[in-house]
Amino acid sequence: MFEIVEVGSRLTKSDYEAQLPALRTRMLQLQEQLLAAGIPLTIIIAGVEGAGKGALVSRLNEWLDARHIQTHAFWEESDEERERPYFWRFWRKLPARGKTAIFFGSWYTQPIVDRVLRRSNDAELALHTGRINEIERMLCADGALIVKFWMHLTAEQQQQALQEDLANGLRPGEQCKRYAKHYREFRRVSAEVIRCTDSGCSPWRLVEAADRRHREIAVARLLVAAIEQRLQFAGAKPTTTAASPPVTAGSGGRNVLDQVDLSQHLDADRYKKKLAKFQARLNDLSWQAHAKKRSIVVVFEGWDAAGKGSTIRRITAAIDARLYRVIPVAAPSDEERDQHYLWRFWRHLPRAGYTTLYDRSWYGRVLVERVEAYARDEEWLRAYQEINDFESQLREQGVIVCKFWLHIDADEQLRRFHERENTPWKRHKIGPEDYRNRAQWPAYQQAVQDMVAHTSTGGAPWELIPANCKKFARVAVLKTLCHHIAAALAENT
Amino acid sequence: MFEIVEVGSRLTKSDYEAQLPALRTRMLQLQEQLLAAGIPLTIIIAGVEGAGKGALVSRLNEWLDARHIQTHAFWEESDEERERPYFWRFWRKLPARGKTAIFFGSWYTQPIVDRVLRRSNDAELALHTGRINEIERMLCADGALIVKFWMHLTAEQQQQALQEDLANGLRPGEQCKRYAKHYREFRRVSAEVIRCTDSGCSPWRLVEAADRRHREIAVARLLVAAIEQRLQFAGAKPTTTAASPPVTAGSGGRNVLDQVDLSQHLDADRYKKKLAKFQARLNDLSWQAHAKKRSIVVVFEGWDAAGKGSTIRRITAAIDARLYRVIPVAAPSDEERDQHYLWRFWRHLPRAGYTTLYDRSWYGRVLVERVEAYARDEEWLRAYQEINDFESQLREQGVIVCKFWLHIDADEQLRRFHERENTPWKRHKIGPEDYRNRAQWPAYQQAVQDMVAHTSTGGAPWELIPANCKKFARVAVLKTLCHHIAAALAENT
Repeated sequence: MFEIVEVGSRLTKSDYEAQLPALRTRMLQLQEQLLAAGIPLTIIIAGVEGAGKGALVSRLNEWLDARHIQTHAFWEESDEERERPYFWRFWRKLPARGKTAIFFGSWYTQPIVDRVLRRSNDAELALHTGRINEIERMLCADGALIVKFWMHLTAEQQQQALQEDLANGLRPGEQCKRYAKHYREFRRVSAEVIRCTDSGCSPWRLVEAADRRHREIAVARLLVAAIEQRLQFAGAKPTTTAASPPVTAGSGGRNVLDQVDLSQHLDADRYKKKLAKFQARLNDLSWQAHAKKRSIVVVFEGWDAAGKGSTIRRITAAIDARLYRVIPVAAPSDEERDQHYLWRFWRHLPRAGYTTLYDRSWYGRVLVERVEAYARDEEWLRAYQEINDFESQLREQGVIVCKFWLHIDADEQLRRFHERENTPWKRHKIGPEDYRNRAQWPAYQQAVQDMVAHTSTGGAPWELIPANCKKFARVAVLKTLCHHIAAALAENT
Repeated sequence: MFEIVEVGSRLTKSDYEAQLPALRTRMLQLQEQLLAAGIPLTIIIAGVEGAGKGALVSRLNEWLDARHIQTHAFWEESDEERERPYFWRFWRKLPARGKTAIFFGSWYTQPIVDRVLRRSNDAELALHTGRINEIERMLCADGALIVKFWMHLTAEQQQQALQEDLANGLRPGEQCKRYAKHYREFRRVSAEVIRCTDSGCSPWRLVEAADRRHREIAVARLLVAAIEQRLQFAGAKPTTTAASPPVTAGSGGRNVLDQVDLSQHLDADRYKKKLAKFQARLNDLSWQAHAKKRSIVVVFEGWDAAGKGSTIRRITAAIDARLYRVIPVAAPSDEERDQHYLWRFWRHLPRAGYTTLYDRSWYGRVLVERVEAYARDEEWLRAYQEINDFESQLREQGVIVCKFWLHIDADEQLRRFHERENTPWKRHKIGPEDYRNRAQWPAYQQAVQDMVAHTSTGGAPWELIPANCKKFARVAVLKTLCHHIAAALAENT
């Protein structure tokens, strides 16, 4: 999930100064509207140490109308607090209707720190995240808006930030060592906590925090989008006709897909050799998985004409026909439409030891259904947690889950569209709808970014495959798939 | 929670026959409306073995329109099912929009049985109930209606039912022994599972199952009420102007308050002695609790003029003034009204070692706010789980929670109203509002019944105190309070 905030987003001074005034004005307007609508707003600032959370809190205080805002830092607990249930300290500080509270540190801090320092175990952490979900749901059901920011740094960025503080005399030296030591574990635990508490009513907003100007503008933008969405939901007249709001830092930052190196290429000779090698490997692994009764679920998503179909054929060519099924996912059937959107995917789950390849999948909910507004905002926002929950049930059952996004650029797509139009046996694969989708490219890009942010989990990460060169993509998918299956089979022996 | 379904509800044949035709007609009408509105209905039949669940399922099939209904029994899992995630078998059987499914056994069966037979531990059970909450919330958010019935029998009633089956050759003999052996544990685990999954979107409906006619009519009534409420929520025109729907078997059955023996009485001499004895005891215990840093939270609810104030004074007279606070709960202040309804109770929580007495409490949400429609149906229905969650946070912190309902009958209340009117220094305690509340007596009775059903938990049970005789009530409260505190203090030494 953190891959989307490790893309090197930066903002120049002039861009920052160009964007800020409008955002500040908008934030103040929205604060007025929250007051009028009686909606209490809680802004949670969480994330990596050294990510500038303190400075961000000051900035928010500077931007927003001080009369309606209160900041609460949750440091060491007081006597008063220790002697009452954990949530008491937070209840005390909740904003009244129409008011805003900034929580610098929050109910997330202690559970994460305790788990990282091994003061608690996984079960206790699960209990905590469950309770957090309850309280957030309860407050949202009561009309509250909770906007949660996670400020992210890589290990290197963190060390750099800490060293700068150290040089400026702002931090004791041993802190740097301590955080460096715990970074990996902190990252793992945070990802788990974010996944478990990433609900439709209060989704996490991940922010790449290394660049001060980028992180400030990103937070301002996401805050504006979140408040606008909430007001719309409250029946207040929407003042912008924005499409569905981003849940990860959008404009001003870079998209995770920009990181994919599309220049990667494979020539025909090497392709042939590698294809044969990995197909043989996959054949072997699929029999091993069968013997061990491990199922495999493979998800293919990607741009139109990215080569999903032909890649799937290279996989199925390698697996015994008795062991797999391909489920092409198009518009739902009547029967499927009369059920919950996940129903059609549950029904096709493989038995133990078999493989199902989904050509498009449940991610349609947060891709096409979001972009085309087939699903309402609250529906697709809720879907991230529903999907994570679904996939974690698969993994608990021992199913190996692999998810591929085949990435091409807009030029390559256009080239392939034209090729399809000019090839008699490919002409049925292209129509006006494809061009319509193509016009939505930026909206899909944001949707992919948000999808990766919310559903690329430790157990089922997204693999972003450069597919401008079809041969490269096919081999990359085969290789990655083999790698995942082999790793999963090794785990349990 | 099971106390409300151990009150001896029975129905005569003539009453049964008088009530059934209208209910059957209504069920068929409502089924049509569900179909038109595209709302899928899942009826879950769970509960004690021997409670007539099978017969009930047959009866529902007889009553409802067979074209739109399917029954699924979840017995031993098949190969097909074992090889897929636990919820797969249920997903397969979910009803399509507008259709009805009866789940005979459900996602609740296996977690309960596994815990009773020690195949799983508390943490695994918590994980399971968490997951059940997620799936039920997800389906409800998607528009589904889930009505969950818990058919209850006492241990004796269960044995009697099983012996009858045995005599009729319907059961093997060893089953009776096995169920008898596990009854207590089954009851404990079931109560815990019901508490944890008793959500606002799909609350449990408890049914006293010993009498066939009663349980059938109770299920029919509760089903009708649940569907009517859901249709109202869906914007369909409500066809009845029923007040808030009952969530426990109402008319035709007996109310839990009917079980309270109001004839109990204490004369002045014995009152004096007992009062002195338990006040001394309470004083001692309150210091012990203070020394052990255990807090005490005492909740008083009851009919108007039931004697809450005077009972509280007998308690405070016994405790050192430094150790307690009394929080009288009337209409919320402006500041409180601008917060979540639980906020005003959280703020007054005692520090470790101190006592807070709430004269009326958070239960106002499911009593006066429900009956007077200050809270919407979905708000007070949700409140049971919110309250249970709140109280379990208190208990985890070591707080001793005691809840008293002071019960008087309507005649006694009227007598006390008149007495107040005729006593100059009591006149301020009576006004037209009290008479208005009095007119709502049956609605309050149902609300109390539902409250006890949903919030009388192992850790914080409701104590129903007969209070027609004030002296008896005061001593009973003191004695019960001492008992709870002593038991809690003994636990942790």
